[in-house]
Amino acid sequence: MQGNLNGNMMNTQLLVIDLLDYARQQFPEQEVVSRRLEGDIHRTNYAECWRRSCQLAHALDALGVGMDDCVASMAWNTHRHLELYYAVSGVGAILHTVNPRLFAEQVEYIINHAEDKYVFVDLGFLALLEQIQAQLPTVKGYIVLTDREHMPESSLPNLLCYEELIANQPHTYDWPRFNEDHAASLCYTSGTTGNPKGVCYSHRALVLHAQATVSSALLDLRAETVLLPMVTMYHASAWGAPYAAPLAGAKLVLPGSGMDGASMWELIENEKVNVGLGVPTIWLTLHNYLQERKITDTPLERVCVGGAASPIGMVRTYAERYNIYWQPIWGMTETAPLATSLPPTPAIMALPKEQRYQLQTTAGRAAFGVEMEIFDADDVAVAHDGESSGELRVRGPWICNQYYKNDDLSSFPNGWLGTGDIAVIDQHGYMRVVDRKKDVIKSGGEWISSLEIENIVSLHPQVNECAVVGVKHPKWDERPLLLVVLNQGEEADEHAILSHLQGKIAKWWTPDAVEFVSELPKTGTGKVRKNELRDAYLNYLIERGA
Amino acid sequence: MQGNLNGNMMNTQLLVIDLLDYARQQFPEQEVVSRRLEGDIHRTNYAECWRRSCQLAHALDALGVGMDDCVASMAWNTHRHLELYYAVSGVGAILHTVNPRLFAEQVEYIINHAEDKYVFVDLGFLALLEQIQAQLPTVKGYIVLTDREHMPESSLPNLLCYEELIANQPHTYDWPRFNEDHAASLCYTSGTTGNPKGVCYSHRALVLHAQATVSSALLDLRAETVLLPMVTMYHASAWGAPYAAPLAGAKLVLPGSGMDGASMWELIENEKVNVGLGVPTIWLTLHNYLQERKITDTPLERVCVGGAASPIGMVRTYAERYNIYWQPIWGMTETAPLATSLPPTPAIMALPKEQRYQLQTTAGRAAFGVEMEIFDADDVAVAHDGESSGELRVRGPWICNQYYKNDDLSSFPNGWLGTGDIAVIDQHGYMRVVDRKKDVIKSGGEWISSLEIENIVSLHPQVNECAVVGVKHPKWDERPLLLVVLNQGEEADEHAILSHLQGKIAKWWTPDAVEFVSELPKTGTGKVRKNELRDAYLNYLIERGA
Ligand SMILES: Nc1ncnc2c1ncn2[C@@H]1O[C@H](COP(=O)(O)OP(=O)(O)OP(=O)(O)O)[C@@H](O)[C@H]1O
Ligand SMILES: Nc1ncnc2c1ncn2[C@@H]1O[C@H](COP(=O)(O)OP(=O)(O)OP(=O)(O)O)[C@@H](O)[C@H]1O
Ligand SMILES: [Mg+2]
Ligand SMILES: [Mg+2]
Repeated sequence: MQGNLNGNMMNTQLLVIDLLDYARQQFPEQEVVSRRLEGDIHRTNYAECWRRSCQLAHALDALGVGMDDCVASMAWNTHRHLELYYAVSGVGAILHTVNPRLFAEQVEYIINHAEDKYVFVDLGFLALLEQIQAQLPTVKGYIVLTDREHMPESSLPNLLCYEELIANQPHTYDWPRFNEDHAASLCYTSGTTGNPKGVCYSHRALVLHAQATVSSALLDLRAETVLLPMVTMYHASAWGAPYAAPLAGAKLVLPGSGMDGASMWELIENEKVNVGLGVPTIWLTLHNYLQERKITDTPLERVCVGGAASPIGMVRTYAERYNIYWQPIWGMTETAPLATSLPPTPAIMALPKEQRYQLQTTAGRAAFGVEMEIFDADDVAVAHDGESSGELRVRGPWICNQYYKNDDLSSFPNGWLGTGDIAVIDQHGYMRVVDRKKDVIKSGGEWISSLEIENIVSLHPQVNECAVVGVKHPKWDERPLLLVVLNQGEEADEHAILSHLQGKIAKWWTPDAVEFVSELPKTGTGKVRKNELRDAYLNYLIERGA
Repeated sequence: MQGNLNGNMMNTQLLVIDLLDYARQQFPEQEVVSRRLEGDIHRTNYAECWRRSCQLAHALDALGVGMDDCVASMAWNTHRHLELYYAVSGVGAILHTVNPRLFAEQVEYIINHAEDKYVFVDLGFLALLEQIQAQLPTVKGYIVLTDREHMPESSLPNLLCYEELIANQPHTYDWPRFNEDHAASLCYTSGTTGNPKGVCYSHRALVLHAQATVSSALLDLRAETVLLPMVTMYHASAWGAPYAAPLAGAKLVLPGSGMDGASMWELIENEKVNVGLGVPTIWLTLHNYLQERKITDTPLERVCVGGAASPIGMVRTYAERYNIYWQPIWGMTETAPLATSLPPTPAIMALPKEQRYQLQTTAGRAAFGVEMEIFDADDVAVAHDGESSGELRVRGPWICNQYYKNDDLSSFPNGWLGTGDIAVIDQHGYMRVVDRKKDVIKSGGEWISSLEIENIVSLHPQVNECAVVGVKHPKWDERPLLLVVLNQGEEADEHAILSHLQGKIAKWWTPDAVEFVSELPKTGTGKVRKNELRDAYLNYLIERGA
């Protein structure tokens, strides 16, 4: 239905550059602290970041980067990457954040698929590019994100030095205004099956996402927030932190490549970080580090945790040991990525502890702008009763409606994004992912939720991490196998672990076996590689003579 | 400049109805408390408000209201008016909020200009409509916002009862999706000079405005906020409170027609209001009421104050007597209306008291999305130095670019909205209105800022209210005349008042005379009618023999 009568309002477009423009005006001295690849801790602020982004924009012009050109970054979370976020999108080009943890062939594939004109690369990722550069015909040059002093030897052609490139450029730039639907950035999913698929974000989507992100429904960022994104700027835009922090005037602490406990803690302690962003395993890493050192007192008030389900054991540990609120969020590359959360509202904090912890293992509720439904196998929306499960589908202004240069619309049924997640939604709107479609265990024709089992195992006092995967079974097709990493120096046997599950799950959900391992394989974004585990243990039960 | 490459994001439109949809899902039991025209206090919540809005939407369909039709409301702040806000815009029609304090001829003019199809009217405003109804050819019927029991006698044709109209309608409604640029509501300026001019808001503008409003840069609304808009829903949408409160999940307290101290305090005390919205005179009214009763303890944490300059005397009184933060805002009907503010950030609260109070008399800084410049008489942008003054002009996605059905673009120079306010902006972006163009006093060719004088006079211990206007002078063309309302039962003479100004303003700014009055004439929105004062006192100095 369409009316003819429009409001008489200016058609000011929502552009990404305006976020930094706002920060440099309102919070010029708010800090941006980075652990640089050169090894030091670097301090700057939004005013300087703006100035350097202007310089970078001039440099991009000089390189001949035009609107519609893709420019790649292969970089950790640092102030220079932040400058790329604003300058590249600001001039109207598209920042393609390349995940350097992909296999070399995948990196080659996506750079060619995106037709990147330049690659801005951090110290440490040059070897990967050297390996594939001969197969990158669209790339005109490589810019190392460092100064002259730290420029490495490299066989890459047309190698430039970032600091030299921008050094003599003017400090102001006349940023173009264009339509908000214009592409701003591009990120490829890791492509665990098939080739990686690109998600191309518009300026409108990123600005609306940033506004949602700072709101109390999602990350609740403010000028007094000190934000540490332990999620990378090369994957799903570090959950939008580079856009949201300037809008909120939050202090931004960028961990560079320091994803280990000691590096993380150094920043948290020194910079007084009060809000962290990361996948569950990052907070497990931090916990393991702090526990070993008997540290319980931290400046952290909240950790915002997504990318994988929140295990109740971690929720409780963070609450009771550290007095840190574990704030679950759900999202994916295709959703810019934030879509749901469970912020610590007075109502939530007033709940009995155990009830609250349970809620904190859900993914929370949809932010304003995001619509969620669960669809069964016949494409029929099921009830929001906390029981009926099916594929989670989402809609909204920052949600992908097609992969980049890709005609396969099978992930986009009827105007929705099909997430590939199996989920339930309860009557109050709380959503819980019970499994990924591809991780679902089908035993004798019935589903078993690996996440639910993992959640309960995570509560076992000797368990540090675990994963449940479906492996071949002669009678039931698939049966669950439980893989467990114990706490360092602690012990437990199969019986101890399985009896812990008794009475908490349906009996037939009980894993057929427990395998103790020293670590779980992870993706570049810190998620357990279940497909790898499945492959490795596929015949485990058969070989054991199940 | 335009690129060709759009992001691959869903084109979900930003529609007003989604705000209430969000609230009924996330905060179904959050309260909406209204002082009804029937005299009682009425309690409802967002779930019920949603249900009744659905019913109202069906009723509008039954009345034949289509997209592009204008529907008028003449109503105070109550839950029924809230339902109109959502249902009328929700079906795609345009809610025209008529200011019932306009003169009858003006009401007639704007209803005809808008071509309103129906008028929803509160008890108390029927007489006005009866007077003009014969001249309202487009109006097909009048709906009284009450139940059968309270239906008044009236000569209005086609008189309907609101509660009857919606009573038997279904509880759900299939809200149409349409373009976000579509008109949602319409509000006419009071038209102190010439005919009133309509500002027609789009859905996009109202949703973006709501998101800005809840953010920490403007009103900082949250689920724990209890919001009392003492600004009317018939003028500038009660500063957007009806849209922002549901988005934030805030409790909404609607004062009906009770704009006096006792009614206000009853709601503040009983409902535990922590944030109030209103013009300075409203907070003066509250202060006078509380002072008389020696009340200093209130649940209020902040009063957000705009529509007129914030007098420093009030800022200080609210801080020191009540421990309430006086949060200045600036906006106008043409800006939806909120554009700037000074929220109590840690940085602001850490300032020395006197410096903070001074800042609180500015209008604060522009919210994200709003651009401000000061232009001199030659249309040249002047420096942001806190000294250079000129016309304030603004741009942004919720700012008017043309009056409704009006070809006169003189208020919209070069894509800006010319506000008619004379202002300065300092290097940190703090904006201060020094006068209205039409209120400026021109003495011997030089400007005198009436607001600056009023600000200082407001500090005099015996002064309750004051206004400075320019009146005729034989030698200097115009000279300032100061009108003063003293505190009840207190005394002061001209000499006492003028000597209080000494050393605080340039000597030639000193008013030529002080006239003590028992009250100042106010507009329906609580602003001092300076034009009326000017007319009344035009020859005051000449008659006194200046
Ligand atoms: N709160 C959560 N609970 C459970 N799972 C979650 C949660 N948040 C995110 N996820 C999982 O992470 C997925 C999105 O992750 P992301 O887009 O980062 O890449 P990926 O899907 O892990 O890998 P790929 O690149 O192969 O698509 C979701 O589809 C979901 O399966
Ligand atoms: N913080 C403030 N300081 C000084 N003046 C302010 C402030 N906020 C608003 N105003 C004044 O209020 C005006 C906007 O008010 P509004 O749109 O409600 O109607 P109006 O301009 O008073 O009347 P009309 O309907 O005739 O235009 C601004 O143009 C400005 O003059
Ligand atoms: Mg995925
Ligand atoms: Mg005006």
